Amino acid sequence: MDICAYSFEEYLNMVKSFHGSLAPGLVIGGFMVDLAGKNLPEGEFFDAICETPACLPDAVQILTPCTFGNGWLSVVNFGRFAITLYEKYSGKGVRVFLDTEKLNRWPEIRDWYFKKKKKSEQNKDLLMAQITEAGYGLFSIQSVQVDPEKVRRKKKGPIGICPVCHEAYPVNDGDKCRNCQGDSPYLNVVSVDSK
Amino acid sequence: MDICAYSFEEYLNMVKSFHGSLAPGLVIGGFMVDLAGKNLPEGEFFDAICETPACLPDAVQILTPCTFGNGWLSVVNFGRFAITLYEKYSGKGVRVFLDTEKLNRWPEIRDWYFKKKKKSEQNKDLLMAQITEAGYGLFSIQSVQVDPEKVRRKKKGPIGICPVCHEAYPVNDGDKCRNCQGDSPYLNVVSVDSK
Repeated sequence: MDICAYSFEEYLNMVKSFHGSLAPGLVIGGFMVDLAGKNLPEGEFFDAICETPACLPDAVQILTPCTFGNGWLSVVNFGRFAITLYEKYSGKGVRVFLDTEKLNRWPEIRDWYFKKKKKSEQNKDLLMAQITEAGYGLFSIQSVQVDPEKVRRKKKGPIGICPVCHEAYPVNDGDKCRNCQGDSPYLNVVSVDSK
Repeated sequence: MDICAYSFEEYLNMVKSFHGSLAPGLVIGGFMVDLAGKNLPEGEFFDAICETPACLPDAVQILTPCTFGNGWLSVVNFGRFAITLYEKYSGKGVRVFLDTEKLNRWPEIRDWYFKKKKKSEQNKDLLMAQITEAGYGLFSIQSVQVDPEKVRRKKKGPIGICPVCHEAYPVNDGDKCRNCQGDSPYLNVVSVDSK
């Protein structure tokens, strides 16, 4: 049982190293990326979409050339457990998703996904055993036509200096940067010297 | 010259392997994460913020335990070249940012960042040489108080079945999933059998 170019064990080790823990969603995600890779349409360069920010983006980042920082991975926050790999120019792609009808065969996975049990009540070993046994059996596949404009990162455009914070920012954002327009996540900012 | 726990050469190899190319922004980002790590406030568990989706998230993902999929890395799209590492409970953190006043010492970096030259006119070797020479010299540091609620991923809440697509989705999103509410990036969807 391989996950893309890796043995299952190798993949689990990569998950632990990159993601920090052997999250069930990421083990399932490995099978999803692998299955998508086996069902790609024609093409050479594929971008990725994850329909949830939870776990799945790391499966894509570990197993494909698509990362969040290089822009080939887009994340849309639909909370659907699904990934799509699509040819970046034509938009033709394959979508692999968790099929709720198939989940009933694997009650521990179903109860985990639908949050039917508290974490303390989950049987982690049984959950992982069912995930491993299920493999591709949890998913269905769709052929999709992606509108790349809807998911691809917009170009930043010209760069200017924000008159408030004096940092560089995309002038298309307005006459000052978005942080200084009021979106800041910082309650307090103090300049300091490096240690 | 080390970048966190790695030699500079090791870091460059990790960048090529993960990000796919030796992007200048990611080399600069390595120095930023390293400098932030040297100036952390007290604490044990640190989450990360990138203020741009371009390049920087990959420096954080390569060098820290924070990834997009595990939720410890938040990305806000301010287009400012800055990262923050903050203690996840207290919100106390350190912010490292590209200081536009310091950029003038390194004209090739300045012209690249402000897009003063077409890609074909850039001297990539000189750019990388200036980045390496500059090291921490491009940045300033701030002590910040983060409002974690503003950046941390919201919990999904209860999971239901979308009456349109029949996939699992967070019921807090409404009576059907966000895709079926009209946000779909797919122009066309057809069920297929796996190859």
